[in-house]
Formats: sequence, structure tokens, C-alpha cells
Amino acid sequence: MPTISDRGRAIPASPIRKLAPYADEARRKGRKIYHLNIGQPDIPTPDVALNAIRNIDLKVLAYSHSAGNESYRRRLAEFYRSIGIDVEYTDILITTGGSEAILFGLMSCLNPGEEVITPEPLYANYNGFAVGAGIKIVPVTSYITDDFALPPIKEIEKRITPKTKGIIICNPNNPTGYLYSREELHLLAEIARDHDLFLFSDEAYRDFCYDGAEHVSAMTLTGIENNVVLLDSVSKRYSECGIRIGALVTRNREVISTALKFGQARLSPPGLGQIAAEASIDTSPDYFIEVNREYTARRNFMVEALNKIPGVYCPKPKGAFYTVVKLPVDDSDKFARWLLEEFEFNNQTVMVAPATGFYSTSGLGKNEVRIAYVLKIEDLKNAMETLAEALKVYPGRV
Amino acid sequence: MPTISDRGRAIPASPIRKLAPYADEARRKGRKIYHLNIGQPDIPTPDVALNAIRNIDLKVLAYSHSAGNESYRRRLAEFYRSIGIDVEYTDILITTGGSEAILFGLMSCLNPGEEVITPEPLYANYNGFAVGAGIKIVPVTSYITDDFALPPIKEIEKRITPKTKGIIICNPNNPTGYLYSREELHLLAEIARDHDLFLFSDEAYRDFCYDGAEHVSAMTLTGIENNVVLLDSVSKRYSECGIRIGALVTRNREVISTALKFGQARLSPPGLGQIAAEASIDTSPDYFIEVNREYTARRNFMVEALNKIPGVYCPKPKGAFYTVVKLPVDDSDKFARWLLEEFEFNNQTVMVAPATGFYSTSGLGKNEVRIAYVLKIEDLKNAMETLAEALKVYPGRV
Repeated sequence: MPTISDRGRAIPASPIRKLAPYADEARRKGRKIYHLNIGQPDIPTPDVALNAIRNIDLKVLAYSHSAGNESYRRRLAEFYRSIGIDVEYTDILITTGGSEAILFGLMSCLNPGEEVITPEPLYANYNGFAVGAGIKIVPVTSYITDDFALPPIKEIEKRITPKTKGIIICNPNNPTGYLYSREELHLLAEIARDHDLFLFSDEAYRDFCYDGAEHVSAMTLTGIENNVVLLDSVSKRYSECGIRIGALVTRNREVISTALKFGQARLSPPGLGQIAAEASIDTSPDYFIEVNREYTARRNFMVEALNKIPGVYCPKPKGAFYTVVKLPVDDSDKFARWLLEEFEFNNQTVMVAPATGFYSTSGLGKNEVRIAYVLKIEDLKNAMETLAEALKVYPGRV
Repeated sequence: MPTISDRGRAIPASPIRKLAPYADEARRKGRKIYHLNIGQPDIPTPDVALNAIRNIDLKVLAYSHSAGNESYRRRLAEFYRSIGIDVEYTDILITTGGSEAILFGLMSCLNPGEEVITPEPLYANYNGFAVGAGIKIVPVTSYITDDFALPPIKEIEKRITPKTKGIIICNPNNPTGYLYSREELHLLAEIARDHDLFLFSDEAYRDFCYDGAEHVSAMTLTGIENNVVLLDSVSKRYSECGIRIGALVTRNREVISTALKFGQARLSPPGLGQIAAEASIDTSPDYFIEVNREYTARRNFMVEALNKIPGVYCPKPKGAFYTVVKLPVDDSDKFARWLLEEFEFNNQTVMVAPATGFYSTSGLGKNEVRIAYVLKIEDLKNAMETLAEALKVYPGRV
């Protein structure tokens, strides 16, 4: 029997999926599980998107252009310009989810063995894509004591080697919810310019900023127009994660034409998803106001509830719909598993993502978990009560 | 300005897309172009698929399981069993097109630097995926003089090195239309077993076999159950190329669980496409009878028309909807470009794919082009007339 590849073995288990068998078992026992572990919002997809799908008038579901339908790219460029990102449709490659934008961005810019620096906690799937692309993720740790602000620039500079080709940020951040400030982005722009690095900016959560806080897109930074590669997605903006539509956007002609070559090899991004995504651009502004109001209320409720639990610290995130929380536990992996295997409160339990999987540096995150506030407040309330009860009785409490 | 990756530069230009700018220019001049260069069928997508999409009753277009919806995998396993491929739904990973099945298959089984042997002419995008996966495609040439039959086994064995991890075949073959016989598959099974190699079998065109010829799936070969990785797609079977749904199917538990890790990193395959693909399983048998009748007629017409042109030789392919044809020209790349830039007959011209892009060995394919018979006979008739006229006046005729 032939053996599989070492790189296959090297992909770390997904922190949000590795507990699935225990969740299945808990469900078999009749437990209700509150899913705080995954970023699948319960917000309805806009009607304009659903109706576009219901009204398709096609006889053949044919390949689209490898860069995505021109009509969609043109409308998307208009949309970007309306939010201050000045690009042409030729600067856009439509991808199969934000996932493919990340993979194509890394593969187009980095050779195998080269390095990209990123603040940790980090989006766990960067690790999987790094294995696929044969590149190295070099972490620079951010700390819950700073509410996960950008680490000092000198810490980033220390990690630059001849193999470093770029920096990747997720803004607002998954998993921390941190929103990078204009000042922080200027510091990143400087370092990218001075060291001739790509700045990959994953802005999938751009629309989820609270308390009137401003989102600064890396695409608006001046002087590094050829360094910035925007990695985007419609998944969260329109609550249509399943259609798998994202975009790689850059003014760097070499990068976009190289990414297109990877795009041509896979023929085209999903056609039906592109129809939904293009129609979504017409979503009423009221939709976003309502979504923002809802998430603000959820966040406020959750942060307050968590910080009331003895020994727990939750920063107040300004963006996305995640938070990394400090818990008084010995080992967040053990705790998360115990919640599913051993614990119940009124026959219910919660599922959280151990933060260890969001750190590249081993040993970090053992007393932290990521919580996604993607449930309605009534459910969040039950979930928070359940978590508080669990922490009272968890044998590994510290 | 940071520089892009060498691997980005290494991806060869797509033989079916590199002529697009000349086609655009010809169109601007008002030329009608017969597209014999791409495998986009004009056959309607089955109504059951379109209706499933039109009738979606979802409020949130959410992520599906990373391996694909369980309901779809279960129905697909039933479908495979109905055609003699005995698998369980847990042997199936739903992928984003057959493209992702190829990429995940190669990445799961081969380390960077390792090799996979394939008969050439080959599916050109294997080259792009090989660059992405950092592996090497080792060609073994098949010849038009043998109608592109499997090269002698000793030629394949000669190319086995310590780095060889597998053999990849496309059956029926894109670009040649060759359908591998049971005997040829047994020879491949023997070599895979004796040398402990994976046998990747790309069967996207399984349903397109003519003259009553039997398709033998590599999944039905005995004694190498853990070696075979089936790479499949619904694109051609149901004429729904644009939904981007394929599958990686294998009884090798290590391969399927590794491929799933790559699948988890990209979250899920397209959700709307899965709905269409699952519904497509209910397509009436009459649909396939009609499609087969149509393609058989197109092939018969085209082969006869081509072989009537002086200096042209076209084998009679038993499968898929392509053929690689020998033309009396100096250079198929020049000829294909000349057709678009210089030639017209009744203000129309044809677009063909130079065969050079389907060979890995440089210098081969200079007097061959790939022709896709995806047009209705009336259009094929005009296209063949136009090609015949072109060959009369082409300055590089040999």
C-alpha cells in the first residue's frame, strides 16, 4: 500500500472541527449544544441574493471566466470604490471563497520555503494553506493583556529574514475580534515599504465594526500600492458562507496575472455563487444597520456576562464576531472536550474552540478559548449560564 | 516592489486560453468564431438540476460539511454502486470541481519533488496543479499513429524512479478521446501493485463512450483497492461545468482523511452546486441516451469531414468529446493564431487548441491540434468547411 505525503500529515487538526466526534456523542445522549465554536452566523441571507438564485434563467450552467464573470467584477469594483477602495475590475480575481484568495495570494507571491509573518492568535486555516503552499507562517504573539493589539513593530522586524516575503493580517481579526487602528496600519505600511514585503490583508469581516469604529482597509494605504494584496469574501457580509465566493484584489499587475494562472488551472469560480454574490451588492443599507445593531447587542451582552464569571477575562472586541477569552482552566483542549463528554446543565452544554489551535507557537492558548457570538441573545444567555456553571465544577479549574 | 514567486512564473500558459486576446480582436472585426478549442458543451443542463436551484427553500446559505453534504454523499455512493463502483459514502470527498479532486489527490499522496507518470498528450491543467503542488509530471508519449493507445508498459516502467508515487490517467482521455481497454487497465493495475504506486483515475468523461464501448473504471480493478484514487466531476455528465462540483473517491482511509484535512482548510465545497448535483442524480435515463446519440453523430460527422481534408488525419475516438488531429502545418501555435488574426472565410473562422500545450515533452504536438466537438452538426459543418479552406491557403502549410 503506497504511503501518503508528509505534508498531508503536517496539516494541524482544525481547532473548530477536531471536537466534532465528542459533539456527535453528546448529541446522541440528547444534549442540547450551544455552538460557540464556529463562525456560521444565523443571520438570514439577503432576499436579493436568494431571489436571484430562484429566478435563474439559464439553460446551461456553463463555466464562467476564470477571473469571474465580468459583470460581477465590474459591479464589485464599483462597490469597492464606493467604500474608498479605488480599483478597476481588472484588479479583481473572483475566487472560490476567501479561502482560495488566501491560497492563490500566498502561492503567487511566495516560493516554497519562504516565510510570511502574522500576529497570533491567527486564523487557524492559514496553517493548512501554508502546508499546501509549502511556506512557513512566522508568528509574532499578541497578548490578551493588550486586548490583542498589533505587537510592537520591533517584534515584527526581529522576525524578518532573507526568506520573508510578506506580512498577513486579518482585520478585523478572526479569532480575537481586534480591529487594527489607522496608526497600526501606517506602521505596517512602513515596514512593508522599507523591507519590500507584500502586505496581505484579509478583510472578510470588514462590515463588522462596532461602536462607530472605522475600518481602515490596507488598500487605502498610500506608497505601497504594489505591495498590498486584499483577500476578501462575501461569506460574512451577506451571510452566504456556503456559496464560496471571495476575491483577490491587488493593483500589482504581476500578482493578479499570476493568480489568474492558478485560476485558469481550476477553470472558474462557482457560477451559481457568483450570481448570488452579484445580486447581493443591491442589498438594502437597512440590512447592514440591523445586522450591526444585532451583533453589537450580542457582543455587549456576552462581554458583560463573561466578565461577571469569576476568573474570566474577555476583552471588548471592536470587530468581527469572535473573542478570545481567558478562562481559569488548566488546559483549554481538555476543558472543551470535558464540556462535551462529561458536563451538562439542564441537559445542555456549550462547544468552544480551544485557543491552542489559533497559536503557531506551541504552548500558548492553554487558558484561552475562542467564542463566536453568532447566536441570538436568548441562546447566548443560556450558553453563558451554562459556561458559568461548568467553570464552577470543572475539575481542572485553576 | 516585491517580486512574485518563481512557481507563479512556472505555470505554463493554458493552451485553450492563451489565444483569447486574438479571438477578442477577431470578434471586434466582426468575425464569427467557431469554438472548437474548449470543452464547454452546448447540451442543456437537466431540468431536475435547474428546478432544484429554482426551488431552494433556505434562509441562510450556510457552510456545508467540509466533505460535502451527507445526503449528497449517500446518494452519490448509491449512484456509484449502481454503475459497479462499490463504495460507501465515507469513501467520498465532495470537491470544488474535478479540479480540486486532482489537486487534493496529488497533494495528499505526493510530497514536493515527487513524481507522477502520465501518458501524453495530457490534460493541460495537470501541469498547473503540478506547479501548485510542487510535484513533477513525468510524461510517457502516446502516438497518433497508434490512435493514442496506452504506451507499452516497458516505456512506463522505464520512467519509474525512487521519487515516483503514482500514475495518472484520464479515461476517456482529454485531449485525445482515447478510451482505455480492460487489458490496458489490467496492465496499469499490475504496475501499480508491483511498484506500490497510486493509480489516479480521472473519469470526468465516463459517460461519453461511443459505439457501445465499455468504460472500465479503475475503481473496479481488484487487488489494488488501496492504490486507486478516483477523480470525478459532474461537469460533463450533466452539462453543469459552472457549478464546480466534483469528487475524490478512494477506499484508502489514509488518503481520504488527509484529503479531508485539505478540505477543512478551505471550509466547504460550493453549497448551491451541491444542491444541483444531488438533484442531477435523478436525471432521466433518456437524457443520456439522447446526449450519447448527439455526440456520436457529431463525432462521426467530424471524423469523416476531417479525414476528407487533404493531409489531415483524425483517429476515431471512442470516448469524451475531443480529438487530437494531425494537420499539414509547420507550427500549430502559429496556425491557431493565424486563423484568428489573418484568416476569414465568409467572415467566419475557427478557434482550435494547439496540441503543444498538451504535451509535457517540448517540441511535440507542433503538427497537431485538439478539437472539441461540442457544437451542433450544422455549426460543425461550417467549422469543418472553414478549416478546410484555411488549410488551402495557410502560408505555413507543409
